[in-house]
Amino acid sequence: MNDIDSQKQLLKRSVEAKDIFIPHISADPVVFGFDRNELKVLLAKMHYKKQWLLPGGYVGKDEDLDEAVVRILKSRAGVTNVFLEEFGVFGKKNRSEFYFEDFDETLFQKQRFISVGYYALSNSIDINPVADEISEICEWVYLKQLPEIDLAMDHREIIEKALLTLREKISYKPIGYNLLPEKFTFPELQKLYEAILGKELNRGNFYRKIKNLGILKKLEEQRRGGAHKSPDLYSFDQENYARALENGLNSW
Amino acid sequence: MNDIDSQKQLLKRSVEAKDIFIPHISADPVVFGFDRNELKVLLAKMHYKKQWLLPGGYVGKDEDLDEAVVRILKSRAGVTNVFLEEFGVFGKKNRSEFYFEDFDETLFQKQRFISVGYYALSNSIDINPVADEISEICEWVYLKQLPEIDLAMDHREIIEKALLTLREKISYKPIGYNLLPEKFTFPELQKLYEAILGKELNRGNFYRKIKNLGILKKLEEQRRGGAHKSPDLYSFDQENYARALENGLNSW
Repeated sequence: MNDIDSQKQLLKRSVEAKDIFIPHISADPVVFGFDRNELKVLLAKMHYKKQWLLPGGYVGKDEDLDEAVVRILKSRAGVTNVFLEEFGVFGKKNRSEFYFEDFDETLFQKQRFISVGYYALSNSIDINPVADEISEICEWVYLKQLPEIDLAMDHREIIEKALLTLREKISYKPIGYNLLPEKFTFPELQKLYEAILGKELNRGNFYRKIKNLGILKKLEEQRRGGAHKSPDLYSFDQENYARALENGLNSW
Repeated sequence: MNDIDSQKQLLKRSVEAKDIFIPHISADPVVFGFDRNELKVLLAKMHYKKQWLLPGGYVGKDEDLDEAVVRILKSRAGVTNVFLEEFGVFGKKNRSEFYFEDFDETLFQKQRFISVGYYALSNSIDINPVADEISEICEWVYLKQLPEIDLAMDHREIIEKALLTLREKISYKPIGYNLLPEKFTFPELQKLYEAILGKELNRGNFYRKIKNLGILKKLEEQRRGGAHKSPDLYSFDQENYARALENGLNSW
């Protein structure tokens, strides 16, 4: 789609949006996946401008905010069945003023929006992102690639806040259930923790701490097919995992 | 102020508000204090209706959201110098529809608002709440009194979510610096933890855990004047406390 067509499309959307949505509030989902020992995040690029964006959207006049973000993620990225949790609100007055610079103030999308950030952890192999009609592309981008790409508005800050929230959560909640496959090895779990924390962990300490939490069960089977000794497979002990989620890892 | 006057006042405010504020977004501060071994929260009652409310307000057209909540708390309750942290967004579509039932839809205050909740911990002896002109009263209410009082809209839910957030935070961050006086006894700190957690703690376990965190320093002086043996006084070790805030109580 060329520049003129993409601008026409946004103008048409603006007219529709004024009927459907309340102004000034948007929601941005930050969906994390874990793949090849790396964290990645779901991003989209609109036909208009070639910058990456979170697949966000607006809140319907007759829609709860929690319903809105689920609908937005489905319509903008084709993603369903992830648990979205609010982690921050982004309310700087000029946060998006440059993005729609080609339009005048009557464009719905150009007004001031305060955006509510939601994050989700997903087993990314179950998710095939689908771009909507205003997007050229919607796909996973590895966090390590983020420094090199052009992210619009304050979406870099939103992703960083989501990651910080995840990093804080990992200190008092178990993490992994939604990010890892059903069966995984201990080194895979460690790689996940290292990816979230952004640092390497001592193998022995990590092993001991995780064991003490009691959230894992060792399976009878080993993984086959590698060149090395078959590694042990684990899965989460659902009951203990749920209890640790509920009570925190270190209760008073 | 009688019913007619309070309604006139809100109508006048509505006209002004349309010029000053963006619609659909509000902010509600939940300020906690700790006094007589009990948690309390700052609430106001408007002249209009005799229900309790958080001292919330709207966001200026030319104001960041973070600036707005500070201004709101100052203008509605006379409170400054507390650290406000966002903890949740309340976006049900009908959350406030009954409150302004005496007005038609043109009242600014009656439209749909999505409210951003901020909580703060305060040393309540430094705070003397001052009601603004739309309020009959603004004062501390003990949490244990909440079941008996008439709270408007979803403000009970907002306070409960703030308390849950505090309860979760206490599992991985030190708490007390803003809630306790500079010098305090060990039993006072335990009472604070018990008030937040809503349960009694074993004295020996609590003592051992807190000692292990290294966030306290024992002072040379004792508290005088009681009938019993003078209890030891403590204060927070600023450096270790700051480090525990930064890194969490249990890092990986």
